[in-house]
Amino acid sequence: MATYGVILLSGGLDSTTVAAYARARIEHLTAMTFYYGQSHGKEVECARKIAEVLAVSHQVVDVSFFGQVAWDSALTNPDLFPLPKDRSIAEMGSGIPVTYVPLRNTIFLTLAAALLESEMLNAIEGQGVAPKGMEASLFMAANAIDYSGYPDCRPEYFQRMAETLNYGSKLWTHYRVPIQVETPIIRLTKGDIVRMGMELRAPLEYTWSCYLGDPAPCGKCDSCILRAKGFREAGVPDPLLRRLGVR
Amino acid sequence: MATYGVILLSGGLDSTTVAAYARARIEHLTAMTFYYGQSHGKEVECARKIAEVLAVSHQVVDVSFFGQVAWDSALTNPDLFPLPKDRSIAEMGSGIPVTYVPLRNTIFLTLAAALLESEMLNAIEGQGVAPKGMEASLFMAANAIDYSGYPDCRPEYFQRMAETLNYGSKLWTHYRVPIQVETPIIRLTKGDIVRMGMELRAPLEYTWSCYLGDPAPCGKCDSCILRAKGFREAGVPDPLLRRLGVR
Repeated sequence: MATYGVILLSGGLDSTTVAAYARARIEHLTAMTFYYGQSHGKEVECARKIAEVLAVSHQVVDVSFFGQVAWDSALTNPDLFPLPKDRSIAEMGSGIPVTYVPLRNTIFLTLAAALLESEMLNAIEGQGVAPKGMEASLFMAANAIDYSGYPDCRPEYFQRMAETLNYGSKLWTHYRVPIQVETPIIRLTKGDIVRMGMELRAPLEYTWSCYLGDPAPCGKCDSCILRAKGFREAGVPDPLLRRLGVR
Repeated sequence: MATYGVILLSGGLDSTTVAAYARARIEHLTAMTFYYGQSHGKEVECARKIAEVLAVSHQVVDVSFFGQVAWDSALTNPDLFPLPKDRSIAEMGSGIPVTYVPLRNTIFLTLAAALLESEMLNAIEGQGVAPKGMEASLFMAANAIDYSGYPDCRPEYFQRMAETLNYGSKLWTHYRVPIQVETPIIRLTKGDIVRMGMELRAPLEYTWSCYLGDPAPCGKCDSCILRAKGFREAGVPDPLLRRLGVR
């Protein structure tokens, strides 16, 4: 079996769960982490540790052009569009949030696909032909439940994205190996994701969700609240808090 | 008319011709040039001058991650895959060339679309609603004649690419303004492109095609040979050579 994959790993709960899922199925798996001047580098350090624990190779890619290109967003240009401090989780569901980043997932998936195709073409062209049963998968921890409203988190988007990646690639047009875009947690609630992560023994104790980069999570930001809700729903304690010895 | 566009401008003959074409039709046009450690920065300087002459705004984007991601290519990693020195133009047509860069056009078009969407969302959200007749166009100087063999230069690829960009964007899913991908020279020979450029009064005297970055084009590389063939077919002298006072 020649299975190849790239998992987009942010260092958070969701992508770490998906990484553990991909790890169990894919022979040649690479974790890819994008760095674009987020408010803190803590996620990148977490991603590094998680890749190490899962024993997958890790590529950290500096995409600092991001704020110059997809600039109309509170995430890439917080100075231009300050994040509303009092935003509640309920508000997240209404319309497209201010944290929408123009074509974020299309950019990330394309870069991941280019890395995947590079690795696979290199493997194939050493042998001259694609091995039988060769598989190419991109894994993304997109979720259409807790963060509904983003156009690039919908199944109908991912389906078209995969088709476009294939039409533009040598891997498919020449070697007939299709790239699949897999979003295994797209329909899961945060509680389901926690349960899945625990079952797969994903290293959730190294994941980071908090918007801030302090030694311990703040427990008050949207992301901390959503995470706590997930563990509460799953009925298990958060292993990160245990590891840090807080609460 | 609220017409918005981004033209991918390399500083070469083809993209400069397409830029002049877009300039005549689009009200808010931005030229976008990618810089990724090409062998010389001359193209970027040419693109800057061309944007200035055409009086369009210009974004130079550093995509130096390119060699790390789409790494399996003679263009992004010349050390790994040396360009065959004796490669003739005829050979270019056979199969997919070694200069294929994994998902190059998908990456470039996505970044261009993110910039276009950012500009348009910002314009729309100032007013709360998309102006009637608003148009969004990406212009790319892809060509399926002289450089056939690249999967991401085929019309069926561009059609899917546009659809995916729309499905992943707020501009289309929320405001119903579709992004069009326009490739006006896709079926033209080099001679036709030169004729079109001359008719549109594109500043061809500032375009650069040579693989080398010397003060004058070498006249011997594939790109110089193809360019000379274009001007010969069109029956006009190359205004670059006149400007430089060579030949």
